Amino acid sequence: MSAKKQINLSNCIRAIPDFPKAGILFRDITTLLNDKAAFKQSIDSLADEFKTKKIDFVVAAEARGFIFGAALAYKLKAGFVPVRKKGKLPHKTFEATYDLEYGKDSLTIHQDAFKPGANILIVDDLLATGGTVKAASELVKKLDGNIVGICFLIELVELQGRDKLKDYPVFSLIKY
Amino acid sequence: MSAKKQINLSNCIRAIPDFPKAGILFRDITTLLNDKAAFKQSIDSLADEFKTKKIDFVVAAEARGFIFGAALAYKLKAGFVPVRKKGKLPHKTFEATYDLEYGKDSLTIHQDAFKPGANILIVDDLLATGGTVKAASELVKKLDGNIVGICFLIELVELQGRDKLKDYPVFSLIKY
Repeated sequence: MSAKKQINLSNCIRAIPDFPKAGILFRDITTLLNDKAAFKQSIDSLADEFKTKKIDFVVAAEARGFIFGAALAYKLKAGFVPVRKKGKLPHKTFEATYDLEYGKDSLTIHQDAFKPGANILIVDDLLATGGTVKAASELVKKLDGNIVGICFLIELVELQGRDKLKDYPVFSLIKY
Repeated sequence: MSAKKQINLSNCIRAIPDFPKAGILFRDITTLLNDKAAFKQSIDSLADEFKTKKIDFVVAAEARGFIFGAALAYKLKAGFVPVRKKGKLPHKTFEATYDLEYGKDSLTIHQDAFKPGANILIVDDLLATGGTVKAASELVKKLDGNIVGICFLIELVELQGRDKLKDYPVFSLIKY
């Protein structure tokens, strides 16, 4: 227990109506990132949840996932493995596709990103329908990684993204 | 002086010929990111260079810049300000264009990202011709930020990117 005052992180997220299109209430994390105490508390709280789990690598998808993933890897003294859009990683990759509202997109991971059995934490800024992180988890399994947990800054509970990830422990700091 | 053995970081970068196209020798940072000791040393060394400079915000451009920028902001107990491609940031933005090999591209920053006079450190993974970071520096100046320094993991010296940034202190960990 720390005596330090904890920030209510949900107060640091800005809601932007009709972005990127009409009817969507966008959760803008940049106001949390701008707040050095809130950003630090976010990373420390996520790290605290997994500090006993011997995380070897943090895996995160571009672009916003890199923000939380890299800081968390640094804090946990783990390696960082970027998952990127097709064509961005320069070496041999595995690929996983996921559904968009219209059509599909795909993510890739380097085939030599880590050894089989490595303890993996997957991180993203926001859990909505779960498609991106589900694809990232499939990539980790192609490399025989041991997914110890999946964590998010924000979870949009009513979109039920957790249902896609029920094989793994899921943790989020802010729920809407 | 630390007695801890320092890693030669340039040994952690993988050179990939002909990526993204023939004739280009691509410097692949993922092998450094995968190496937890090398990643930690990179962030610690960059932070060490600026730890007395009272950095309020670290500014970095997507996507790879987010990796070093966010971890460095965490380490320096600073806020993190993402610079993104046009259309990605949800609130009011300023825009700066930069030249690509063919045509132009543009980067944006939130207009309310920080207050005038804030001490800013700009970070990217690699300094090549300097176009991206030059655009980022223009965005910071539009918000009247005080650019305390610009730092990179890697600098490709013969491309002379430093010449575009000569108004500011530039620091890089690995030079090719």
